[in-house]
Amino acid sequence: MRGEIYTTTPKHSLPMALVNENYLKLQSSYLFSEVARRVREYEAEKPPRKIIRLGIGDVTEPLPRACVDAMADAVREMGCRDTFRGYGPEQGYAFLREAIAENDFRARGCDIAADEIFVSDGAKCDTGNFQELFSAEARIAVPDPVYPVYVDTNVMAGRTGDAADGRYAGLLYLEGNAGNGFVPAPPAGERPDIVYLCFPNNPTGATATREQLAAWVKWARESGTIILFDAAYEAFIRDPAVPHSIYEIDGARDVAVEFRSFSKTAGFTGTRCAFTVVPKSVIARTRDGAAVALHGLWNRRQTTKFNGVSYPVQRAAAAVYTKAGREQTRALIDGYLANAKAIRAKLTSLGYECTGGDNSPYVWMKAGEPSWDAFDTLLREKQIVTTPGAGFGRCGEGYIRFSAFNSPETVAEAMARL
Amino acid sequence: MRGEIYTTTPKHSLPMALVNENYLKLQSSYLFSEVARRVREYEAEKPPRKIIRLGIGDVTEPLPRACVDAMADAVREMGCRDTFRGYGPEQGYAFLREAIAENDFRARGCDIAADEIFVSDGAKCDTGNFQELFSAEARIAVPDPVYPVYVDTNVMAGRTGDAADGRYAGLLYLEGNAGNGFVPAPPAGERPDIVYLCFPNNPTGATATREQLAAWVKWARESGTIILFDAAYEAFIRDPAVPHSIYEIDGARDVAVEFRSFSKTAGFTGTRCAFTVVPKSVIARTRDGAAVALHGLWNRRQTTKFNGVSYPVQRAAAAVYTKAGREQTRALIDGYLANAKAIRAKLTSLGYECTGGDNSPYVWMKAGEPSWDAFDTLLREKQIVTTPGAGFGRCGEGYIRFSAFNSPETVAEAMARL
Repeated sequence: MRGEIYTTTPKHSLPMALVNENYLKLQSSYLFSEVARRVREYEAEKPPRKIIRLGIGDVTEPLPRACVDAMADAVREMGCRDTFRGYGPEQGYAFLREAIAENDFRARGCDIAADEIFVSDGAKCDTGNFQELFSAEARIAVPDPVYPVYVDTNVMAGRTGDAADGRYAGLLYLEGNAGNGFVPAPPAGERPDIVYLCFPNNPTGATATREQLAAWVKWARESGTIILFDAAYEAFIRDPAVPHSIYEIDGARDVAVEFRSFSKTAGFTGTRCAFTVVPKSVIARTRDGAAVALHGLWNRRQTTKFNGVSYPVQRAAAAVYTKAGREQTRALIDGYLANAKAIRAKLTSLGYECTGGDNSPYVWMKAGEPSWDAFDTLLREKQIVTTPGAGFGRCGEGYIRFSAFNSPETVAEAMARL
Repeated sequence: MRGEIYTTTPKHSLPMALVNENYLKLQSSYLFSEVARRVREYEAEKPPRKIIRLGIGDVTEPLPRACVDAMADAVREMGCRDTFRGYGPEQGYAFLREAIAENDFRARGCDIAADEIFVSDGAKCDTGNFQELFSAEARIAVPDPVYPVYVDTNVMAGRTGDAADGRYAGLLYLEGNAGNGFVPAPPAGERPDIVYLCFPNNPTGATATREQLAAWVKWARESGTIILFDAAYEAFIRDPAVPHSIYEIDGARDVAVEFRSFSKTAGFTGTRCAFTVVPKSVIARTRDGAAVALHGLWNRRQTTKFNGVSYPVQRAAAAVYTKAGREQTRALIDGYLANAKAIRAKLTSLGYECTGGDNSPYVWMKAGEPSWDAFDTLLREKQIVTTPGAGFGRCGEGYIRFSAFNSPETVAEAMARL
């Protein structure tokens, strides 16, 4: 039954308020909640050995020392009247926004100013919330496989019809597959209002070349589409030819918003800090043709519905840009990249086709059977948690995502089990 | 011109995506941004003495020692592999939710379980986001004067028409005034889907008696209305007859959601932690009459669009419930309450009518002139920042809000200037 996971039987017979029925279109619980549920269920059966988690993309290594020290200092400041901080500046502290603009953008030749940066508590929140700035009738394009947040938040907002065979009516799906290396080309003849792109990709680990991104920017300028560019895994890029930011492409400043996060860059999944870049030159329009800058709308959205990131957390994030912080985060990511390489090498040696694992912490493996079957087999026979590719869309069916977020020893043990 | 603060002139002639035009109905920037702008402008003119800020309700005293110590310990944990934490449990850590359920609810006889609590980074975020769970056609009732977030987030969501004379078409305004002590009665004959209530009230400082809240709950049960109860200032209640939670009222568990925050309770405005209580028994309905529990919808909303609160911050919040934490937060609030009493005494001695300042950090003063005039006069002649009552709605016109969030010395100096 449609919406069965949300409907209930009330214990009273009171009149009731009207819910947002778009939620009832959602096909199941959030992917990672479902993975967690199956793992909990199996754990309750007392598995024969320790379960190794290579599923959800959660980091395992401690925060870099520079971040810990900066955060500890800031906590002490919060305990003294003279250095205590209440509400911070609405877009985030200047010390953090300026470090970001300088190191992540201007150092790469990208023309991004500190006041175009909005500090937040997560790229998931920002990629989920940004759609609010667009019309309820806006047409949305998403990759497939896709990070579920892009789809689900648009379903909740009522921009889709019902789902059938794992796809929602009204969404434009951009198919990724072995043929295009999981980097879909811009859809000729289509003019969606928004397209979500994610490189290095979650879940496939694929990266886009400069030429591929340039084709997207050119198409977006011609078709009147805003690119929501998720670069949460940017720090894993080691190939000097692969762009780190969409703003490395000429013309992107007019049509692209970029999402970044400290979660994977510096192990902040439990610390919580991210940022979104909204260039002042990104313009959308009303039905009557009036031009509206997204920068002002996002500022209004954030000042109305958000209240900033914890001051000690912003200090910890700023420490990522110090000399020590840069060295420590690079070493952290080198460790995860070595894991990814080991996973890919093992899977390839077993004859599986793989994407990712080089400029990405994810290895995307063709399983040779339905994704959830492969997930259950790996869980119950090898005691390894992965993420079923089918959870990322129809094009993910038959694939499994391995995450490199673990210690080298644990990854080695997991690979030995295969 | 409608939306003039958001429209712009593009530097290009590209086609453009469709924006959410509801944002253009918003009358001006967020109230506190406008206050900050006027203060910045005046500061640039080099005022003759230090500006004293009794405007925005931002705390000034350091975090309680128990919170600082707990947070510092947690930061150290984040620096060691064995104690490092990545993504936390989706509704918040059990150590915090259990402390909340026990101390804030069960100790007062309220039947609230730990799994009905959702830890978040702010009550502003939660009160702003909760409307997403309801139909786009849901009818909304708000108090006037009102915390602007309740109104603006519904405007953004398209549940109103345009504004005229400071009110949006389609909203039901519940008028507060000297006659009802700024505690409006339930609207007879009306059946909104949602009503926002806030006690102790921001901005008026008014509190609701047990009988008044019971009348609201009775009416909500009969009219099929969900009460969104904002209790962010609960910790300021000292009168034993005033309820701290809506769940002290029989029957509230079926119709009320409650928002709480550590911002004002323990000085967390820059540290960021809050929580929302969604009892499993609060049920809404689809157009076809199917029943839907809001608990499941909010869980889905939060797991899709939010990623939890920083672990060290959750540890700091849990420390509020330790013996030392309780003593320290009580002392902190006693200090602010003494300020509030002093402000109210001074204003009353000058002949001004006031509400609040006893079980609330806010003193709401009848100014005898338009609010923004009184704001500008106080800023430019007394160098005191207040908040203009008109920013909270039509019924706030002619009033000024004084905040008690400052040191006793600073408040004494401000009062001496009057």
